[in-house]
Amino acid sequence: MLDALFRPRSIAVVGASTDPTKLGSLPIKFMLGADFKGEIYPVNPRASTIQGLPVFGSVKAIGKKVDLAIIAVPKELSRAAVADCAEAGVRAAVMFTSGFAEVDAPGASAQREITALARSAGMRVLGPNCLGVVNFAEGMVASFHPAFALTEKRAGRIGLASQSGAFGGLSYNLARERGLSFSYCVTTGNEADIDIAECVSFLANDASTEVILLYLEGCRNGPALIEALKTARRKGKFVIAIKVGRTASGAAAVASHTATLAGSDAVFDALFRQYGVYRAQTIEEFLDVGLACAVGKPPRNASLGLVTVSGGVGVLMADAATNLGLEVTPLPEATQARVREILPYAGPRNPIDVTGQVVADPKLFERGLEIALAEGGFGGLVTFTGALPRNPEHAPMLKGVFASLRERHPDVSLISAGLSTPQFRDELGALAIPSFEDPSRAVRAAAALRFFAERSGETGRAEQRAHPPLPEGPMGEVEALRALGAAGIPVVESHLAPDAKSAVDAARKIGFPVVMKIASPDILHKSDIGGVLLGLASEAEVLKGFEELLARARRAHPRARIQGCLVAPRIEGGTEIVLGTNLDPVFGPVVMVGLGGIFVEILHDISLRLAPIGIEEAHAMLRELKGFALLEGARGRLPADIEAMARALVDLSSFAHAHAHEIVSCDINPFLVLSKGAVAVDAVIVRNS
Amino acid sequence: MLDALFRPRSIAVVGASTDPTKLGSLPIKFMLGADFKGEIYPVNPRASTIQGLPVFGSVKAIGKKVDLAIIAVPKELSRAAVADCAEAGVRAAVMFTSGFAEVDAPGASAQREITALARSAGMRVLGPNCLGVVNFAEGMVASFHPAFALTEKRAGRIGLASQSGAFGGLSYNLARERGLSFSYCVTTGNEADIDIAECVSFLANDASTEVILLYLEGCRNGPALIEALKTARRKGKFVIAIKVGRTASGAAAVASHTATLAGSDAVFDALFRQYGVYRAQTIEEFLDVGLACAVGKPPRNASLGLVTVSGGVGVLMADAATNLGLEVTPLPEATQARVREILPYAGPRNPIDVTGQVVADPKLFERGLEIALAEGGFGGLVTFTGALPRNPEHAPMLKGVFASLRERHPDVSLISAGLSTPQFRDELGALAIPSFEDPSRAVRAAAALRFFAERSGETGRAEQRAHPPLPEGPMGEVEALRALGAAGIPVVESHLAPDAKSAVDAARKIGFPVVMKIASPDILHKSDIGGVLLGLASEAEVLKGFEELLARARRAHPRARIQGCLVAPRIEGGTEIVLGTNLDPVFGPVVMVGLGGIFVEILHDISLRLAPIGIEEAHAMLRELKGFALLEGARGRLPADIEAMARALVDLSSFAHAHAHEIVSCDINPFLVLSKGAVAVDAVIVRNS
Repeated sequence: MLDALFRPRSIAVVGASTDPTKLGSLPIKFMLGADFKGEIYPVNPRASTIQGLPVFGSVKAIGKKVDLAIIAVPKELSRAAVADCAEAGVRAAVMFTSGFAEVDAPGASAQREITALARSAGMRVLGPNCLGVVNFAEGMVASFHPAFALTEKRAGRIGLASQSGAFGGLSYNLARERGLSFSYCVTTGNEADIDIAECVSFLANDASTEVILLYLEGCRNGPALIEALKTARRKGKFVIAIKVGRTASGAAAVASHTATLAGSDAVFDALFRQYGVYRAQTIEEFLDVGLACAVGKPPRNASLGLVTVSGGVGVLMADAATNLGLEVTPLPEATQARVREILPYAGPRNPIDVTGQVVADPKLFERGLEIALAEGGFGGLVTFTGALPRNPEHAPMLKGVFASLRERHPDVSLISAGLSTPQFRDELGALAIPSFEDPSRAVRAAAALRFFAERSGETGRAEQRAHPPLPEGPMGEVEALRALGAAGIPVVESHLAPDAKSAVDAARKIGFPVVMKIASPDILHKSDIGGVLLGLASEAEVLKGFEELLARARRAHPRARIQGCLVAPRIEGGTEIVLGTNLDPVFGPVVMVGLGGIFVEILHDISLRLAPIGIEEAHAMLRELKGFALLEGARGRLPADIEAMARALVDLSSFAHAHAHEIVSCDINPFLVLSKGAVAVDAVIVRNS
Repeated sequence: MLDALFRPRSIAVVGASTDPTKLGSLPIKFMLGADFKGEIYPVNPRASTIQGLPVFGSVKAIGKKVDLAIIAVPKELSRAAVADCAEAGVRAAVMFTSGFAEVDAPGASAQREITALARSAGMRVLGPNCLGVVNFAEGMVASFHPAFALTEKRAGRIGLASQSGAFGGLSYNLARERGLSFSYCVTTGNEADIDIAECVSFLANDASTEVILLYLEGCRNGPALIEALKTARRKGKFVIAIKVGRTASGAAAVASHTATLAGSDAVFDALFRQYGVYRAQTIEEFLDVGLACAVGKPPRNASLGLVTVSGGVGVLMADAATNLGLEVTPLPEATQARVREILPYAGPRNPIDVTGQVVADPKLFERGLEIALAEGGFGGLVTFTGALPRNPEHAPMLKGVFASLRERHPDVSLISAGLSTPQFRDELGALAIPSFEDPSRAVRAAAALRFFAERSGETGRAEQRAHPPLPEGPMGEVEALRALGAAGIPVVESHLAPDAKSAVDAARKIGFPVVMKIASPDILHKSDIGGVLLGLASEAEVLKGFEELLARARRAHPRARIQGCLVAPRIEGGTEIVLGTNLDPVFGPVVMVGLGGIFVEILHDISLRLAPIGIEEAHAMLRELKGFALLEGARGRLPADIEAMARALVDLSSFAHAHAHEIVSCDINPFLVLSKGAVAVDAVIVRNS
């Protein structure tokens, strides 16, 4: 779909200048330098040749098919330029020009006008206010950023999509310094037409791209981004994202409780977890993980072997690995004894500290590595070789060790840490061994590779069931519980008693003691008005309680429609959790779970996913909770029925998904989880008004 | 004290070789290259000159005062070498030789022998199995590590003390690449004599050292390390530590509950918090913070201004700053309007996004920075200038901007982020502006500088009171509460009733309902045997309860000495916290506080300090707790009496400190904090047996 943008064969440069340093001239210079094989048509009414190419007075005047137009004219001329392109049948345009929606309301209006013009002609637009797009394999540079003055034509497997131009340029610059090669870079700027989701989709479907680096500030089209990420995962591609604005979401506090908890950055975080996207917090981590994915091999399991020339750095790496969820499993005792035979001074456990002795006899290093690989059962190895790779004598020796290791173990995950040189780094890269100078970063890269290995394959399928329509009118507790019950969620067996006598009948049926609550679709916060009575132990108490509840409700809400009282059993024991859904403006319904009390309120210990979810995802949500140990039976409790909780989450997500257009939010609080089974005790559903 | 080691004027090199690549020859080569002005005496019975210097057959044969001996002989010859040095009156020795305590028991024994020999002659020993020591100002290189082949003699203000040789060499290598300069590097190896604490003490007292980089795996002499860190703080020096083995402490689980919580890495962490040591987690962070301290200025407050050429990187930095506890305060509205006048496309809030326009007009950048500094009220600024410093046209312009800024604001904290060159970095360094390529790391450096600024000045003084002696014999709850009460800690008003009648009298005096517990110095875990009865509401219940408790105690512990029962009031409300002390083998008594229930047991949310502490430190401990909001009155509670809690912590720490030789651990659980006051409800004290 975006072929004209990413793989154009003919490019018009509107606003090309005879001054080679101007925005409109740089792409031409870059493409000529990068040996672009397609056609380049400079467009400028007041020039005849630019950089040796014949110039056209307008795009229409070119008279040939034009795939892509680069629009580099001042803002005042941009509308005319777009019109010219549209009339000439150009398929896509990249607009560098700024001064539109990013500046003020008139700018936004001008941007809408231009977009409408392009749309009516079927022309796609990237930008405005963007740094453009680069196709490295073809030397196609529709960008003026100096980073893309390609001095060497080397295409790689990393695609970069960034909403920020400067961030894109910076990342590319830093990545090149580290020897990384790219398939495409695209920056989307104001996203008047083409948005980040479409670019991710293009990269996910592009055969040459294996790693997608993604910089996000937000997203206009949630479902499209979800689809693109699903595609990437299905095709086994690695997606690494930086999403900025993590803490801004905290600042933009929202009134409603659930909304605060589910602030939009938290929803992006849920999206990333759900679709196996690695979320990086810094540019350094972004590129480190990109490098690991582009170069390295996936670890077979979470156990990491560490082979080091420094004991101290070994401990440092072991700490880092443990903190990142990897296991630093010791070598078997017998293997340790063998290591000690070969390397008498070595620390043979894991980290395997081969000490500086390896300088004298590199074969020892090789044998140490070989034993670790053969007998350690490790999913992968990280080696630390200190300053040896910098030493002209030792570097070839080390390279030889790694090369022969790779020959014997073609699929094992190896990562190298230590002071290095670009040459050593590239030689190891050719052996599918990513290398890092900082040992902690090398370990983080190993953990990232494991992150992806654990998330390979399809996303767990969510159930897409039919749900009965919601009842008309406002929903009180009665209707909410009934609707949730119909969705498969276990709800408390409660009876709506229109009068005191039926309340007594219901209580007798349920068995004493009972709980009684005022029933009214107009009273959502019952406890606030004393509308809940717990532990009514006799008929007399039920009779008296019924009148009391009605009186309280009438005093507090004289105009509320009162349905009577709800009578329900008092449920003993269990763990209170909170289930909920919320409607995210970008991604639609989001499902939430947290432990009741301080876990949600003080520690904000909740887990979110986009609805609908499958049962595996529901289990993953529960395991994410800091308080999960409590559900598993810590502090002498009975283990809670985790399957029942997960099942309820799946059903709730399906319910929220089915009613996405009608339900704003849903709160089940408390959802009581017993050692066998679970039950929704109270629920509030807020409908679209 | 260690002058002979760090500032020797005469050095014997025992085991100097005619082969210039051997361990014993490298220090000579390095010192001749670094123009060491003192005397160097190669010692070798089978050579006459080495590197042009006359050789001696033994140290004794030198016949002159020798401050320092470098011992680089094989292990077999090491004892004789030490004896030779000792007899010659050498003041200190550096032993490179390995194969001692780090290898096996015979090695440890040989090490002890050598140490005793040196001690008896008053000779200090660094090592064995160490990489030695370097004094950069004097070109004194008592090390064979290739990193110390000093190509340029440039002494700086950073002192590095490392227990690991390889780590020390690596850190020095990486630091040099980043333009950092050092006063001293010392690695302590096996610490047969001189330990890391003594080295820190030397650096803390050394006038040329302002920043101390410290690598620790453990510590032999806790009190000496505390003293050294106190000195460093008093003298306004920055101490940055890497302490490895964070997660190993988790693995080495200890049986006792408190001991598990206060595992020794947690105690190091407490030490660092208490004495204002910045704990780095990676080598990168270690050196980044070292760089910031060596070059930069302290921020005046926690509000950080961000000036950026990229909006995206600006948000990234704002996220990082907020996560690290800095405030990204917006510019005042009027100032924002002025920024917009000067830079029409700028994002004027904070981050202040000056956009790529500054390339065209650097004066705009300068004015933007100037306004931010004058009107933002920021404690410091971090700027991000993208790739501009790499551009030969833009770098001098930027440098000019920073230079004139520094001239007008000599004391403001400025940090630069962006792609850079060594030259640009050094020029900014000369202006006291640390620079980093990664913007997140620049922000972390700003946060580290703020960390130190907040901890400047003396540590809050702890009370050193006299405490009455503990009673003889084992301590039950009665004795424990009495002892704690005598130490000033509020304890529950409980009465020891030897018989049922006195129990009733006590209950009547206290007022019903009461709590009653079995009283026996031999029964520490009363609840386990049903030895606690809550809410006894009448005389009859007290009478019956007394007999019941005695019966249960006799059944469970037939041989326990029973004192009767404790009768105490039932205290309503309040928040349960846990106070405790524990005896760390290195640092002595440690005081602990945590919120009761899940906070301690599931979340391990505790705070530790070395006893004794002052009231400010006690408040800091409480504020560290994740559940602190609960104490402040979250979830509709009354705020707890935080001063009473802090006071109790101070008293408990003083008590534990005074009885360090008698008390192994002390647990006050629960310590009930009310909205006014607090009270210890139960306590267990374990004495040294």
